[in-house]
Amino acid sequence: MKYIDLNCDMGESFGAWHMGADAEVMPWVSSINVACGFHAGDPLTMQHTLEVAARHGVAVGAHIGLPDLVGFGRRAMAIKPDELYAISVAQLGTFEAMARTRGLRPGHIKPHGALYHMVEKDDALAQALVQAVSDVDATLRVFGLAGGHLVRQAAAAGLSTANEAFADRRYLDGGQLQARGEPGAVLEDIDAAVRQALDIAVQGQVVSASGKQLPIDADTVCVHGDRADAAAFAQSLRQGLTEAGVQVRSPAHT
Amino acid sequence: MKYIDLNCDMGESFGAWHMGADAEVMPWVSSINVACGFHAGDPLTMQHTLEVAARHGVAVGAHIGLPDLVGFGRRAMAIKPDELYAISVAQLGTFEAMARTRGLRPGHIKPHGALYHMVEKDDALAQALVQAVSDVDATLRVFGLAGGHLVRQAAAAGLSTANEAFADRRYLDGGQLQARGEPGAVLEDIDAAVRQALDIAVQGQVVSASGKQLPIDADTVCVHGDRADAAAFAQSLRQGLTEAGVQVRSPAHT
Amino acid sequence: MKYIDLNCDMGESFGAWHMGADAEVMPWVSSINVACGFHAGDPLTMQHTLEVAARHGVAVGAHIGLPDLVGFGRRAMAIKPDELYAISVAQLGTFEAMARTRGLRPGHIKPHGALYHMVEKDDALAQALVQAVSDVDATLRVFGLAGGHLVRQAAAAGLSTANEAFADRRYLDGGQLQARGEPGAVLEDIDAAVRQALDIAVQGQVVSASGKQLPIDADTVCVHGDRADAAAFAQSLRQGLTEAGVQVRSPAHT
Amino acid sequence: MKYIDLNCDMGESFGAWHMGADAEVMPWVSSINVACGFHAGDPLTMQHTLEVAARHGVAVGAHIGLPDLVGFGRRAMAIKPDELYAISVAQLGTFEAMARTRGLRPGHIKPHGALYHMVEKDDALAQALVQAVSDVDATLRVFGLAGGHLVRQAAAAGLSTANEAFADRRYLDGGQLQARGEPGAVLEDIDAAVRQALDIAVQGQVVSASGKQLPIDADTVCVHGDRADAAAFAQSLRQGLTEAGVQVRSPAHT
Repeated sequence: MKYIDLNCDMGESFGAWHMGADAEVMPWVSSINVACGFHAGDPLTMQHTLEVAARHGVAVGAHIGLPDLVGFGRRAMAIKPDELYAISVAQLGTFEAMARTRGLRPGHIKPHGALYHMVEKDDALAQALVQAVSDVDATLRVFGLAGGHLVRQAAAAGLSTANEAFADRRYLDGGQLQARGEPGAVLEDIDAAVRQALDIAVQGQVVSASGKQLPIDADTVCVHGDRADAAAFAQSLRQGLTEAGVQVRSPAHT
Repeated sequence: MKYIDLNCDMGESFGAWHMGADAEVMPWVSSINVACGFHAGDPLTMQHTLEVAARHGVAVGAHIGLPDLVGFGRRAMAIKPDELYAISVAQLGTFEAMARTRGLRPGHIKPHGALYHMVEKDDALAQALVQAVSDVDATLRVFGLAGGHLVRQAAAAGLSTANEAFADRRYLDGGQLQARGEPGAVLEDIDAAVRQALDIAVQGQVVSASGKQLPIDADTVCVHGDRADAAAFAQSLRQGLTEAGVQVRSPAHT
Repeated sequence: MKYIDLNCDMGESFGAWHMGADAEVMPWVSSINVACGFHAGDPLTMQHTLEVAARHGVAVGAHIGLPDLVGFGRRAMAIKPDELYAISVAQLGTFEAMARTRGLRPGHIKPHGALYHMVEKDDALAQALVQAVSDVDATLRVFGLAGGHLVRQAAAAGLSTANEAFADRRYLDGGQLQARGEPGAVLEDIDAAVRQALDIAVQGQVVSASGKQLPIDADTVCVHGDRADAAAFAQSLRQGLTEAGVQVRSPAHT
Repeated sequence: MKYIDLNCDMGESFGAWHMGADAEVMPWVSSINVACGFHAGDPLTMQHTLEVAARHGVAVGAHIGLPDLVGFGRRAMAIKPDELYAISVAQLGTFEAMARTRGLRPGHIKPHGALYHMVEKDDALAQALVQAVSDVDATLRVFGLAGGHLVRQAAAAGLSTANEAFADRRYLDGGQLQARGEPGAVLEDIDAAVRQALDIAVQGQVVSASGKQLPIDADTVCVHGDRADAAAFAQSLRQGLTEAGVQVRSPAHT
């Protein structure tokens, strides 16, 4: 039997500002990554997000972001490793305490936005994030780009990892994601995205932009919650995978 | 033998901005209350503050503040109980994780600035803070105004408490503190403040502005770290108490 | 011929977070109050909002708020008059420069959220806001509660004013607004709100919650842009007023 | 007769946090660059800084920074040109209104921290800043690295400029500044810095780290206000220049 995790970024509202369709997407995913107040989220939003997750039995993790609310953590910043360490500890702590009050235990962490890519390119930043996880709770699983630098460094430090793939992003021949701005980089068509998810989960491969078949070893597939059709997208992914005999479940339950 | 705790607010720097004389005051106090990023402090500042505390063996607690950096948490805000609950959980979690990475365990919490007074007057806010402590870590001791509403509610909820008195603030006949803005409200003279601390610790009383002797049952005395002479003030308090046979130690070690 | 202004709060998005239906409401109103970055809004959002206003020929003013993004400026804060003066100057300046780059001239200011009510109750705050307007640009018109303290103080200082009434808020017999939390405080029914707007604009009166006819002298009616049906509400107000022979226009064009 | 401007970054306090020795340095400089709330400064701090400047008759300009308080605007951020344009307009507007209320007129702008270097390397950012100045007030003079990209682009757009040199930073043979972290990059010795200032102002040259004489055409010399000896440094610079027959004055008075 095949298994895959479906993860989605949630809790990205801030104060009076609403973002995402958390309640609608929640039934279809197996893990969520919750914003911790640095790039998005605030304490009440975190609490409400975790309450919904608890009702659905979804696994919860911390979505660690850069200290940049107005930029939503999407702008690269020349942050130093010691500061990344400290802000990661802070976010993990906030998340853990909030989860505890809702009767939940954090299972994983995933870097958000610009930080997701910064830890792939800058080893000192990857090490700082890995060290923060090791120091706060070494049982946490680290989510990162499938086959990428972060998961490799996390594994080398003895942490559990999850290789993340994307159902609705076009891959290049070298295995990288096509840059978001380029035409065709996002698979708008839900059926195409479901086919890509099935390729990933069942065949362990993905077809690149040029038509090449690339091997990919993925533990979790990202469901973009900021699509206009996020709930339908999540539902189609879950149903497509289930019908193909792939069990959707969190790596924590593996 | 008599015991008293000397506590001081620390870690109140923010980014490039320095505040306080933490390193100079640290040797003379037995507990510190560390800002958690809402009214002051940032993750790196918290980390450095806790490292200094670890070297001196000082007990550490979370200084919970309002979400108001530019106002330093000193302006009352019409915050609702559910938000106070959530921001308290968030700050406690940040603090606990940061302390854990430095090999420390949080021992107490104390509300900061305007919040210190808001929880004395508004029962719903006091209950929200008490609930947050109970939910995150019911072994934490709650510091509050000696004989006041917060410590009473915390005790009623089964939490440990510490009654806080002030060495350098003038008391009114009713036991309240004279308002800061009024002349004479702060004892600028170190010797007078030491005498008041000795009255509190040894006699269990304090002389009010009108000369009346008021009974006061205090577990901890606040050392204001924002005095220009903070280090000398802390040293004089510690030495004066020690010479009078009062042992200065954290309530965690009682 | 009767005249009335329809004003709406706009530019309340922040970074990646969207709020309101500015583009849909814009065609139906004659004035907008633009958030200036303290309670909502950011420089790019201000710029885009002003560009849409310029295309529709709508009069623009600064919506002055408390420094509280996560609370959206809706929480009363114990801010001092000198700080209110300074943050008002800052917001007016930001607004004026941004308007200038879009070829617009600011016409008015209106306090937002909790500040709207604080300047009605606290004379020192009202004076601070009036002084800021006088010092930055004494040609700006001050919008405030119809017959209230702010417009009275602004007029006493020689500033132009606009008395603001509400189409969809229930009035009490004393002329105050029924508190938002109470049942019936908001007129959800668009037709009822249009009738109240017509009463205000044509008859100069409003029917209170108890059925009493109250005289009201209003220059501008607030269109709440945060209603789910904001665009339909604005359109109905405009059409209802126009059909009743009331010209909808900014007080700047009177 | 020779002329030179001495400029210093000021108004860098934030809320309760104090930074710099503005009052002590103010008598010795001819221009100040005032933080506008994005990387440092808050409205009350701006106001107080401008009041002191007004008393000393010092020329005032806006110090434009990145939106990063905790990083003090010193971390490069992947900000887009349209956002730099908008945040520059916002800061210029805040500054201009605040100056107006103190009876002052802004004379110049200078980018702060990481932005100072970003506009040297990224033409689209330099153009965005120049466009913001042109649109808000085309009489403002643009301060930038002597002979650098920003001043060139500003001049090409028809703006006045001031070439800035550094008295206490070591130059490399190519005319760039030695990186701050490297040993010897900062001239700690005041006499050496005064000699370098005199070389710049009188000879139009500076001696590089390797001993090479480099031509430099400077209109203004930066006085670092964050040196521990900032006031003595500023006084020595002013006296050294004056004794050498160089008149210290703002380019606005040229």
